[in-house]
Amino acid sequence: MTDDQHGPRPPVVGMVGAGQLARMTCQAAIGLGIGFRVLAGSATDSAALVCAGTVTGDYTRLRDLLAFARGCDVLTFDHEHVPAGHLAELEAAALAAVRPGRAALRYTQDKLAMRERLGALGVPCPRYAPVTDLAGVTACAAEWGWPVVLKAVTGGYDGRGVWVCRTPGEAAAVLAHPVAVFAEEHVGFEAELAAMVARSPHGQGAAYPVVQTVQRDGVCHQVLAPAPGLPASLSRDAQRMALELAAELDVTGLLAVELFAAGGSLLVNELATRPHNSGHWTIEGARTSQFEQHLRAVLDLPLGDPRRAAPHAVTANVFGAGAPGGSPHRVNAASPDIFARYEHVMAADPGVKVHLYGKQVRPGRKIGHVTVLGDDPAVLRHRAARAAAYLATGKEEADE
Amino acid sequence: MTDDQHGPRPPVVGMVGAGQLARMTCQAAIGLGIGFRVLAGSATDSAALVCAGTVTGDYTRLRDLLAFARGCDVLTFDHEHVPAGHLAELEAAALAAVRPGRAALRYTQDKLAMRERLGALGVPCPRYAPVTDLAGVTACAAEWGWPVVLKAVTGGYDGRGVWVCRTPGEAAAVLAHPVAVFAEEHVGFEAELAAMVARSPHGQGAAYPVVQTVQRDGVCHQVLAPAPGLPASLSRDAQRMALELAAELDVTGLLAVELFAAGGSLLVNELATRPHNSGHWTIEGARTSQFEQHLRAVLDLPLGDPRRAAPHAVTANVFGAGAPGGSPHRVNAASPDIFARYEHVMAADPGVKVHLYGKQVRPGRKIGHVTVLGDDPAVLRHRAARAAAYLATGKEEADE
Repeated sequence: MTDDQHGPRPPVVGMVGAGQLARMTCQAAIGLGIGFRVLAGSATDSAALVCAGTVTGDYTRLRDLLAFARGCDVLTFDHEHVPAGHLAELEAAALAAVRPGRAALRYTQDKLAMRERLGALGVPCPRYAPVTDLAGVTACAAEWGWPVVLKAVTGGYDGRGVWVCRTPGEAAAVLAHPVAVFAEEHVGFEAELAAMVARSPHGQGAAYPVVQTVQRDGVCHQVLAPAPGLPASLSRDAQRMALELAAELDVTGLLAVELFAAGGSLLVNELATRPHNSGHWTIEGARTSQFEQHLRAVLDLPLGDPRRAAPHAVTANVFGAGAPGGSPHRVNAASPDIFARYEHVMAADPGVKVHLYGKQVRPGRKIGHVTVLGDDPAVLRHRAARAAAYLATGKEEADE
Repeated sequence: MTDDQHGPRPPVVGMVGAGQLARMTCQAAIGLGIGFRVLAGSATDSAALVCAGTVTGDYTRLRDLLAFARGCDVLTFDHEHVPAGHLAELEAAALAAVRPGRAALRYTQDKLAMRERLGALGVPCPRYAPVTDLAGVTACAAEWGWPVVLKAVTGGYDGRGVWVCRTPGEAAAVLAHPVAVFAEEHVGFEAELAAMVARSPHGQGAAYPVVQTVQRDGVCHQVLAPAPGLPASLSRDAQRMALELAAELDVTGLLAVELFAAGGSLLVNELATRPHNSGHWTIEGARTSQFEQHLRAVLDLPLGDPRRAAPHAVTANVFGAGAPGGSPHRVNAASPDIFARYEHVMAADPGVKVHLYGKQVRPGRKIGHVTVLGDDPAVLRHRAARAAAYLATGKEEADE
């Protein structure tokens, strides 16, 4: 990597997508001193607002992807929506190393293929079945009981593309949409967990502490690191499973494995091969943030220390106003100026770390998060919830 | 702060100067979600490489400063070299709040004025005297003994503009330059310390743990946080002195007070009213980094928790090749590609946090730093020195 005119130049990582994951990866890239570019749909995308290496383009157009790849040593992704055919062309063009590659990305793009692959690997998952009509769903329900979960095969994320159907009528309403779905049993879990690992092309792996995610309306509201009360044996099982999966699927970069803890065992819910909302706590709470770790992994550099920097960390997300659910974390639509609320949040708790993503406030949109570190998870949850609620609504709210 | 077309917009901080301090402030601004711009002399300046809000201009030209201020709510600085007359014009124009203001900046621009002011405040300092010729210097030496320190009244930083003269001949050589200097006694200190505080316009103060700086050739090579073996009473004295000075000088933003610890007491060496090399450890080692703290202070937001995030932190600087001194931290001129050395440094110690500033390697230039956190300062010094030396030279080096 040399440039005849200016001497050695740093390696350049290009991230397709310019949401908050790319924005926070940009911060990590600045520290590493590497080159970093984002392919943004718009100059007002979260990462485009802050990244000097912003290229505007459309990730669904092969031409834009190829042009973007030309300026990069490594291509990586802040989402899983690049068409598989384009990924194949990018790999064939060999303008930049594509990490993770198409083969690994497939299992985040096609959830049915993911279930089939995990089944073949003997990884415990909820029971599932391809369905095309209501008869198929009711057949599943006859075996598993209601509710039945219908999931979009492709395109779902952050609670979108997942429908918990309590009756045949609800299932029929979902099936009425022109979206390919499959059915999954509804797991009565005790907790939702996430195991995050990194894997580099030369095969090094590193596992973060397993966290608990607290969901509401199918969306992650809090992350508790490490997962409170999780038996050490289950934690090790989750880490081992994630490391093995990363190797089996040939993941390069991060792999987040969302898990259900049910009856003393673990079931895989979802996979993501990128920085993940469940890992934002690592910015302050781990020796190496998930964003730096992802960059190190896709650059085939030795991985950083994934261990905790504090006994406990809690992250709470902040959402835009107007979404269904009436959460206390939704931003007050009448007063979307969250900067006016910094004063109160920072004065009330000088240890709260606020991250805002520079996004315009829109209903249900994740616009930021807060993280607190300390010794007592219950106290941390209270502090994080309070700060997130105030940022969102400008009001003191009762605890969750 | 509203924008009729796009709803409330975040406050915008503009930093004059685009060195590594601005670069790391940029990272903090991304997290806070505020607007951040830098006024860069060149598009290849350290911060200009990464900051989407880069404006190219010349800080010695009033027109450029005024144009830059027009797009900002608050103007701040990554160096102290903006001409005082321009600062006065900027304050009078009131296009943006100037923080710190001209009155506080004066004492970082004019070291003789600083000494006089500190003397008037009763703050302990080394003995000093204005000098214009060799007779003046030898008169000082007659009282204080040799060596005598000559300091440039203006324009010095990072060891530049400071001459330790051991003989009248050395003093004469310095006086031969067309630079206004004053004389200072050479203090036989036990340790050099730095006390960093933040102060906001509404008067809130926050003090970081006092650190020890390890200098070589007048340049800071290592920072040990907190200062090992510093008696708690001296540490409190240093923090109190820095907080009082920030208030007396009406500093807004950060104030770094460089101190000599000598004979159980403290003498003020230098002042800086900006993020400071002695505070880089706070990025990982404190709950709130100095860069975020500076932004919060100049925005008049409540200050963040300045306490440690780990028992001990050590930062070691990495310098460009070819400078006098032959330090093991100097980059090997024959192989300036420090990215090629990431492999080794990261593999050898996954807990080392590397920060590179994106600067071309030049003799004596500070091009990055590393920070390690842990329990044992001696072990941390070894780890930091090893990583910095390897990044610089591509060789394993003996300990300092």
